Amino acid sequence: MAVVVTKITRPSPELVASAESFGVATVHEAQGRKGLMASYMRPIYPGARIAGSAVTCEVAPGDNWMIHVAVEQCQPGDILVVTPTSPCEDGYFGDLLAASLKARGVKGLIINAGVRDVATLTDMGFPVWSKAIYAQGTVKETLGNVNIPIVCAGAAVSPGDVIVADDDGVAVVAREELAKVVEKAEEREANEVSKRGRLEAGELGLDIYNMRVRLAEKGLRYIDSLEDK
Amino acid sequence: MAVVVTKITRPSPELVASAESFGVATVHEAQGRKGLMASYMRPIYPGARIAGSAVTCEVAPGDNWMIHVAVEQCQPGDILVVTPTSPCEDGYFGDLLAASLKARGVKGLIINAGVRDVATLTDMGFPVWSKAIYAQGTVKETLGNVNIPIVCAGAAVSPGDVIVADDDGVAVVAREELAKVVEKAEEREANEVSKRGRLEAGELGLDIYNMRVRLAEKGLRYIDSLEDK
Amino acid sequence: MAVVVTKITRPSPELVASAESFGVATVHEAQGRKGLMASYMRPIYPGARIAGSAVTCEVAPGDNWMIHVAVEQCQPGDILVVTPTSPCEDGYFGDLLAASLKARGVKGLIINAGVRDVATLTDMGFPVWSKAIYAQGTVKETLGNVNIPIVCAGAAVSPGDVIVADDDGVAVVAREELAKVVEKAEEREANEVSKRGRLEAGELGLDIYNMRVRLAEKGLRYIDSLEDK
Amino acid sequence: MAVVVTKITRPSPELVASAESFGVATVHEAQGRKGLMASYMRPIYPGARIAGSAVTCEVAPGDNWMIHVAVEQCQPGDILVVTPTSPCEDGYFGDLLAASLKARGVKGLIINAGVRDVATLTDMGFPVWSKAIYAQGTVKETLGNVNIPIVCAGAAVSPGDVIVADDDGVAVVAREELAKVVEKAEEREANEVSKRGRLEAGELGLDIYNMRVRLAEKGLRYIDSLEDK
Amino acid sequence: MAVVVTKITRPSPELVASAESFGVATVHEAQGRKGLMASYMRPIYPGARIAGSAVTCEVAPGDNWMIHVAVEQCQPGDILVVTPTSPCEDGYFGDLLAASLKARGVKGLIINAGVRDVATLTDMGFPVWSKAIYAQGTVKETLGNVNIPIVCAGAAVSPGDVIVADDDGVAVVAREELAKVVEKAEEREANEVSKRGRLEAGELGLDIYNMRVRLAEKGLRYIDSLEDK
Amino acid sequence: MAVVVTKITRPSPELVASAESFGVATVHEAQGRKGLMASYMRPIYPGARIAGSAVTCEVAPGDNWMIHVAVEQCQPGDILVVTPTSPCEDGYFGDLLAASLKARGVKGLIINAGVRDVATLTDMGFPVWSKAIYAQGTVKETLGNVNIPIVCAGAAVSPGDVIVADDDGVAVVAREELAKVVEKAEEREANEVSKRGRLEAGELGLDIYNMRVRLAEKGLRYIDSLEDK
Repeated sequence: MAVVVTKITRPSPELVASAESFGVATVHEAQGRKGLMASYMRPIYPGARIAGSAVTCEVAPGDNWMIHVAVEQCQPGDILVVTPTSPCEDGYFGDLLAASLKARGVKGLIINAGVRDVATLTDMGFPVWSKAIYAQGTVKETLGNVNIPIVCAGAAVSPGDVIVADDDGVAVVAREELAKVVEKAEEREANEVSKRGRLEAGELGLDIYNMRVRLAEKGLRYIDSLEDK
Repeated sequence: MAVVVTKITRPSPELVASAESFGVATVHEAQGRKGLMASYMRPIYPGARIAGSAVTCEVAPGDNWMIHVAVEQCQPGDILVVTPTSPCEDGYFGDLLAASLKARGVKGLIINAGVRDVATLTDMGFPVWSKAIYAQGTVKETLGNVNIPIVCAGAAVSPGDVIVADDDGVAVVAREELAKVVEKAEEREANEVSKRGRLEAGELGLDIYNMRVRLAEKGLRYIDSLEDK
Repeated sequence: MAVVVTKITRPSPELVASAESFGVATVHEAQGRKGLMASYMRPIYPGARIAGSAVTCEVAPGDNWMIHVAVEQCQPGDILVVTPTSPCEDGYFGDLLAASLKARGVKGLIINAGVRDVATLTDMGFPVWSKAIYAQGTVKETLGNVNIPIVCAGAAVSPGDVIVADDDGVAVVAREELAKVVEKAEEREANEVSKRGRLEAGELGLDIYNMRVRLAEKGLRYIDSLEDK
Repeated sequence: MAVVVTKITRPSPELVASAESFGVATVHEAQGRKGLMASYMRPIYPGARIAGSAVTCEVAPGDNWMIHVAVEQCQPGDILVVTPTSPCEDGYFGDLLAASLKARGVKGLIINAGVRDVATLTDMGFPVWSKAIYAQGTVKETLGNVNIPIVCAGAAVSPGDVIVADDDGVAVVAREELAKVVEKAEEREANEVSKRGRLEAGELGLDIYNMRVRLAEKGLRYIDSLEDK
Repeated sequence: MAVVVTKITRPSPELVASAESFGVATVHEAQGRKGLMASYMRPIYPGARIAGSAVTCEVAPGDNWMIHVAVEQCQPGDILVVTPTSPCEDGYFGDLLAASLKARGVKGLIINAGVRDVATLTDMGFPVWSKAIYAQGTVKETLGNVNIPIVCAGAAVSPGDVIVADDDGVAVVAREELAKVVEKAEEREANEVSKRGRLEAGELGLDIYNMRVRLAEKGLRYIDSLEDK
Repeated sequence: MAVVVTKITRPSPELVASAESFGVATVHEAQGRKGLMASYMRPIYPGARIAGSAVTCEVAPGDNWMIHVAVEQCQPGDILVVTPTSPCEDGYFGDLLAASLKARGVKGLIINAGVRDVATLTDMGFPVWSKAIYAQGTVKETLGNVNIPIVCAGAAVSPGDVIVADDDGVAVVAREELAKVVEKAEEREANEVSKRGRLEAGELGLDIYNMRVRLAEKGLRYIDSLEDK
């Protein structure tokens, strides 16, 4: 291949803002426990939480040329999502590319590979979730693709899907499902608020969620000591 | 199986407080260099140091039902220790369960699996040592065990054993050995204080520990350059 | 073997200071993208950046005896570089050895193994880059070597080579190449400053680096949607 | 969700047979170097080579219930492709399920998890490519999905896609692209046969592929020794 | 510590022979899905299946001295189980130690570390399950323990426990539970034989195990295509 | 850089043949337990044992161009040693390159990356030790180096060094040390033959190596049971 798809449909900014307010764990639950990237995708600094529309970028191992191509396709509110065609931890991305993305209003980077200049990126407040921190440089020789469907860190991502990222990792929501997911997330959050109060007051989940009968039916036994087994 | 052992013997709070004051590395040394969990068990935020009595909990992979059961068995000063029956990084534990444990006076969680809501847990000051940070949700379908002897991250833990956890990792001390371990830790610490002063003053460990003779006996040679070998 | 080489040639302090000012990523690029340690070598706390002359130390697995020997060979401005002869994550190094190194003016430790007492090391401001944080203690039974050429975390290091370490990892520069590398790093940095300004102003790397023609020659196609492929 | 899609479109048996004859490496190249599962997917015994139409199955961690559901959807010539919703190495599959699949004419199993009874599976000649060999048993409590698009070991798989598996690993070909891929594979194979003869006769790839000019243009230098650098 | 416990109680040879006949997966199931070592414990050659009484041996990292001590404690029918006190892949064991164990009637070795001389061990027919194959030599400097309770590859093992090992991995059965486990294994095997015939005849597990009603109750839906969702 | 060093000094063929006869573990011991590659370097089929003179080749990640360049520098009896400049598992090497190397009398390949066509390579009897088996293809865009000193899988290798590889892994012997290493290996082997006979006859290593006194001095205690501790 080697194509750049220039017209992609982005999600509603209002819905994206809602998704951002909920964070990864809630969004993941709200969409039926799917769409998570692998647990090795970690933020370079704690405390960031972003959501945005995915611009996807597939690169060759050790070659960051297509990231430069992808920058041009980014718009304010986007999140750039990069994956190599085979596993690679090289430092594809540093402070100059971050300056460029920031100038375009991009909210952050998700990269299934390595990143460098992390001290500067932290100072800039440009959040990155990556597989590794690694200073290893890359070349600019081999083409790849921008804005095609990719698999990044175990999750399928299409351009225009919604990325939500925080200290818990990275979640992907299909654009068409976003409205429904946000709605469910609102319900879930509302429900959690009331639960949290009761739990903080010392009530037990066993009682709040009414678990005791079902546990007994399954055969759970309470004994004084293992000798009673 | 599928049992909850309700009567366990806890260690002396005074001894636990002593163990907490020493931290993981000293306690580990004081008990003869045993009882450490694997190095992949990392705190979700730096700076916490806790010690407490273990409540153990064995869960099925991807299923956190038994953690709800275990909460009820916890008392003030306890530390909950959770391990799945086969390797799993799912996010078994989040802010609601933390609220519940905190309400009961539990000091922290040790989990050989994943945890989520880590930003909130950090805000709450509820420390967790885990194998992974991962938003992946779990189900409530399969029974497990509470307060039976388990192996967690390579270390054997019995209910009522003492857990010590800090930035260096997680150590386990058998309840019956705690008094002796605390005594040895006190000796070690006293010894280290005096050593530290001499080292800071520039004295060498080679001399303080009287190593030079034994090194020579073993055959260590000092040469000007490799050509002299 | 089992030798301690006592006379090593150190690099120019001025050049080392220059290398420190550039950091790992720039130095690595300036020397032709070589000399990096593996990405698993991580700092125990963020924000440190050091450069110094390597004192090398080869230890047996689970045995830190030779680190005590190596301390004596260290001078102000040095960085101690330790690797076991086979993979090991044990906690070879803690606050007492750090006190000793600090007393001698050593700038930090690079260890392809584990470290402990990291809370104290952080308080002391003694930076360490390591493979693991692990409280596991070590013995003092087996000889090793000090100041021989070693391979540490995938990188060849000779005594007197320059180590540069920061949040991006650890780089090694051969002593003889340092002057040239610093010169190239200066050029690179100057070049980046001007680029950074243009990128921040919204200019694209595609244009600044004149990439469009070569991308087209290689066959990159811009299409509206994948249906046009 | 929790659905079983019962009507899927399968690829042409003739094209599948062609793909099988070429093997993984050739098919992967013929489709533009995409569609490979991760390198950790290994056969339980050497020498098997299969191709077939994918029946996909998404399971909960530690729960093989849906494999029983998936069996019914399998037809002769199919290959069952199973992935858990989060990483798991449990032994989801053994000799009884293999007997059932074999009775239905299924050619093999691809599972991004563990398998057991591998000695019996080897005796039966039922090939499996898996992430692990692990006797750990699973439960039957949680629903999943059959014949929906999945990501398995880093590769996107839709039901009816073609799986090719041999000692080199596992490749996925989209059903719609199969004819074109087979055509390209034929060309590639024909080309390789002629190349192979010349290489066996001692001709160099440098000459056959005409690489010398381009290498020189890029700046490759032949020198007698590193001193000449 | 540093002790050798010389009197251990071994299990009944008849029961051990039964356990051997069933293999790892069946024994693991028969004892309630517990007692498995980690999936990284692999045989050095395929096809071996052994069961025997455990002699346990705890060694220092990179130090095989205590294996020589453990040999003397071994009797015909035993299996030697070795674990280092911290993770290590060194080659603790080779053909000479195997010759010694073989002369004493020991059936095989389980080692949570490395082994070497595997070609010779294969020729000798001396089976080993290990974490790694690695030629790295070890020293003889540090004491350890023989016949104390250990944790090996995630499983607790006491001297005199029964080890079962085959191509599926390694299982541990507590000596006191062996009779009951063998009994359950017999039931399970009998049950499987009848199931296997029906499955080979094309009957579905869905029907044999009567799963359809419960699947429907849980909400599983059969649909023609995803559009019907 | 990007150089091909055309004149390298090779070791004596007689000494290489001796090294081959001893195998990896003995050679490694004979040279003082150094020079081993990492344990992840595994043969693609069991039973091969080779030794030869190293031709080194440094490649970019995902780019096998320089292997074609290296082939021309190979002579009968050589072993090609390839490492990428950053970690990569791509399939750099397949049956065509093997045909080319075989035509030149090369004995095998050591590659710190992936290999493919392993079924064909096995049929050809061309042995490869690699980090991975992976069908992923590579490009030909970026220069590297041939016959410069490299670090491969943790071991330093200079062109003309001796590679020994068998089922235990891969060892490197510096050319200048080969004669001495072979001599020591002969002594070691002679010594082992006599030991082996005594061990097979049931004599204990404890007695043959005279270990009992030193064990007692170190404090090893023999006790009937742990209660006597």
